[in-house]
Amino acid sequence: MPHSFNRRKFIKASALTGASLAIADSIKAFAPAKKDKVRIGMIGVGLRSHEHMGNFLQREDVEITAIADPQQRSIDEALVVFKQYKRPEPAIYKNGNEDYKNLLKRDDVDAVVICSPWEWHSIQAIDAMNAGKIVGAEVCGAVKLQECWDVVNTSEKTKIPLMMMENVCYRRDVMAVMNMVRKGMFGELIHGQGGYEHDLRGVLFNDGVTAYNSGVEFGKNAYSEAQWRTEHNKNRNGELYPTHGLGPVAVMMDINRGNRMTKLSSIASKAKGLHKYIVEHPKGGENHPNANVVFKCGDIVNTQIQCANGETILLTHDVSSPRPYNLGFRVQGTEGLWQDFGSGGKKQGHIYFQKEMNHSHRWDDTEKWLTEHDHPLWKKYGTQAEGAGHGGMDFFVDHAFIECVKRGTEFPLDVYDYASWYAITPLSEKSIIEGGQVQNIPDFTRGKWKTRKQIFALDDDY
Amino acid sequence: MPHSFNRRKFIKASALTGASLAIADSIKAFAPAKKDKVRIGMIGVGLRSHEHMGNFLQREDVEITAIADPQQRSIDEALVVFKQYKRPEPAIYKNGNEDYKNLLKRDDVDAVVICSPWEWHSIQAIDAMNAGKIVGAEVCGAVKLQECWDVVNTSEKTKIPLMMMENVCYRRDVMAVMNMVRKGMFGELIHGQGGYEHDLRGVLFNDGVTAYNSGVEFGKNAYSEAQWRTEHNKNRNGELYPTHGLGPVAVMMDINRGNRMTKLSSIASKAKGLHKYIVEHPKGGENHPNANVVFKCGDIVNTQIQCANGETILLTHDVSSPRPYNLGFRVQGTEGLWQDFGSGGKKQGHIYFQKEMNHSHRWDDTEKWLTEHDHPLWKKYGTQAEGAGHGGMDFFVDHAFIECVKRGTEFPLDVYDYASWYAITPLSEKSIIEGGQVQNIPDFTRGKWKTRKQIFALDDDY
Repeated sequence: MPHSFNRRKFIKASALTGASLAIADSIKAFAPAKKDKVRIGMIGVGLRSHEHMGNFLQREDVEITAIADPQQRSIDEALVVFKQYKRPEPAIYKNGNEDYKNLLKRDDVDAVVICSPWEWHSIQAIDAMNAGKIVGAEVCGAVKLQECWDVVNTSEKTKIPLMMMENVCYRRDVMAVMNMVRKGMFGELIHGQGGYEHDLRGVLFNDGVTAYNSGVEFGKNAYSEAQWRTEHNKNRNGELYPTHGLGPVAVMMDINRGNRMTKLSSIASKAKGLHKYIVEHPKGGENHPNANVVFKCGDIVNTQIQCANGETILLTHDVSSPRPYNLGFRVQGTEGLWQDFGSGGKKQGHIYFQKEMNHSHRWDDTEKWLTEHDHPLWKKYGTQAEGAGHGGMDFFVDHAFIECVKRGTEFPLDVYDYASWYAITPLSEKSIIEGGQVQNIPDFTRGKWKTRKQIFALDDDY
Repeated sequence: MPHSFNRRKFIKASALTGASLAIADSIKAFAPAKKDKVRIGMIGVGLRSHEHMGNFLQREDVEITAIADPQQRSIDEALVVFKQYKRPEPAIYKNGNEDYKNLLKRDDVDAVVICSPWEWHSIQAIDAMNAGKIVGAEVCGAVKLQECWDVVNTSEKTKIPLMMMENVCYRRDVMAVMNMVRKGMFGELIHGQGGYEHDLRGVLFNDGVTAYNSGVEFGKNAYSEAQWRTEHNKNRNGELYPTHGLGPVAVMMDINRGNRMTKLSSIASKAKGLHKYIVEHPKGGENHPNANVVFKCGDIVNTQIQCANGETILLTHDVSSPRPYNLGFRVQGTEGLWQDFGSGGKKQGHIYFQKEMNHSHRWDDTEKWLTEHDHPLWKKYGTQAEGAGHGGMDFFVDHAFIECVKRGTEFPLDVYDYASWYAITPLSEKSIIEGGQVQNIPDFTRGKWKTRKQIFALDDDY
């Protein structure tokens, strides 16, 4: 082989093994150097983290070097996952709520994945970025609007990227529909809907021993998310959990990448479901102390969102009512409409394309369309993804996170998505307090939305 | 028989034959004397009126004595209906837009049914009540909020009642669901949805000769409702046609009868569908004059409504997009949920009751439930209703109208429903102009909503 060829190969290999100092600052500007292995620190290792850890520990290019969680039970159960995948135990930080800061001081942590209670996400993300650690943040809504700005400002100042780990963007049917949108089958998008309509009554309360459907305790007497999530439903009234419903529609409408959300208004119904659950539960009753608790969050919270390019989005939040699970997606354009009524199964939706269906004005079942237009990522990784968590979508969100960290490329769902999606919550709370008054949604990109290009799942790579 | 018995029978018989002068003023206060025959005047005899006229002309207790319409073609086609049912021709008022006022002077008209273009409904209703004629008003939304007050004030001053003839309240599945609501199967109602999601592109435009799917003309070059309805989509941006979607939910939530709507806010998407239809139509194209028309009404208009008793209602208006017909009903309570996705067919919905379904968290098909809880009215009149128009629901709205006029009883959907449902339109337009700001919905009952009782279809009578 010619001498020059060997030199190019050598330089490439050097880069991959971390000779980052030789790489121009411009490449480092918003993405760390390429890595061949990612060392993860987990902040918050409750039940949600298990799917992430499982996916990470099955990869040869990932090590989880440290975990942080103030609860012994969470630590114990997390270590079981390590054992299951025959991986060495990580360093453990369990000494109170602030011990994660010591994890952040480690130099064998490249990135952290935050799966802590909602109210900790932003502060831990900020601390992580300030410590030079790339962030993968789980989903929720912000407590205060200011935290959305603080997270964006920190990421821009430190040049450390953050990924909004919204797994539903990677759901198989959602990605097939996105594929069809990109092929122009829906025409020009006009309207979308989504939400979180999931009966969580048996999750928000338990007996303190098992997680689901076991009692009426919440807060300190409960286990898992009933310890902290129920408080939000008790003390706050708003669109508390917007990103599962919003994410897919936002991606298809290129929010923050050619488009943006400009205004919202929210209304809340009365709150009856959680109290009723306590009173009617065998372990509850009218005389149980929790029967006196007043839960502020309306059983149904509706939010109307306006977009710069003229689309409208409706979100619905409902965790208190008896009903089958449904994120209630609708994607509607000038040529067709998709409406989902289930949990992502191939037949659990209605679809209509006027040209392909010759103006029949009849719904078609979704199976044929979702199969034919299955996204390349799922075609490639579908089998591997099964068992990864939440029907497989967790495989893809974790795969995207690791691949981007390794390659130093931009996250497909980034800090601007974190900020604008999380912002829905405090803005909806304010709207409800003001009787449904419309609220302006800040432009967290400070104008960059006009020129940023869509990069989400453009091919079968990640 | 004892003498007193005969006297009571005589008085009853006299009352039924119209000896109304003997009846106390208090009975007449808000309801005319009982009649054994109702003499109807039709104001506006375009295509919609044919179902009403057909239902009326099949009844022995109804005579249509007069019709008014400024268009010769409408008159000609209306007379065909009279011929079809072998009934004598009515008196005809076709001398311009104001000739209906001469119909109102007739003393052989007890009640009028108004099926004219939307912008005429309120003024004709007011004129009719001032002329002492009971009113049955077809559906739409108001042009100005003031007309809603004017109609209410006129009815209260003249003591002439008005019926809001919302046929969808009588749709078979809607009435079965209402039956289930009243049986407590949904628990406490929390949230409802409805709308008018009906691809009307082939109705809003035609070739001036046939009504549907025939061209790109509207206004004076068109035929039927494309002459006047399209103008509303061109000049206005709002929830233009709220009552089909709102009516059923409003009845189930006892709006104006123990509850009321308090606030709304609306947002509109961009408007693309109607222009696209013209440009892509074989008789249209980029160079057709109508390709230069700017249509103001957003393709999708969403409205969020708050109710005094804490329920929320979402309405969706969409007449410009390719999609199967659906009024998008949802009825949701603390015990169950019904969601419809079709046009009222027995299987065209999802339903869930947590207790009956043993917390399965799975949708059931609606057929079994709609059949078992079929409303007594449909059980009694279902066969007779078939062929009556719009799947049979027109039979019931016309039956209720005639029975109430005959008996002098309160209309089940009355002037307060007319006012509050029609008011949605101008209030939504104002909200959209103001960027989505919340609007107060007036209390047209002036407080009476707190004590008025629900009377809609309480049994199998009407």
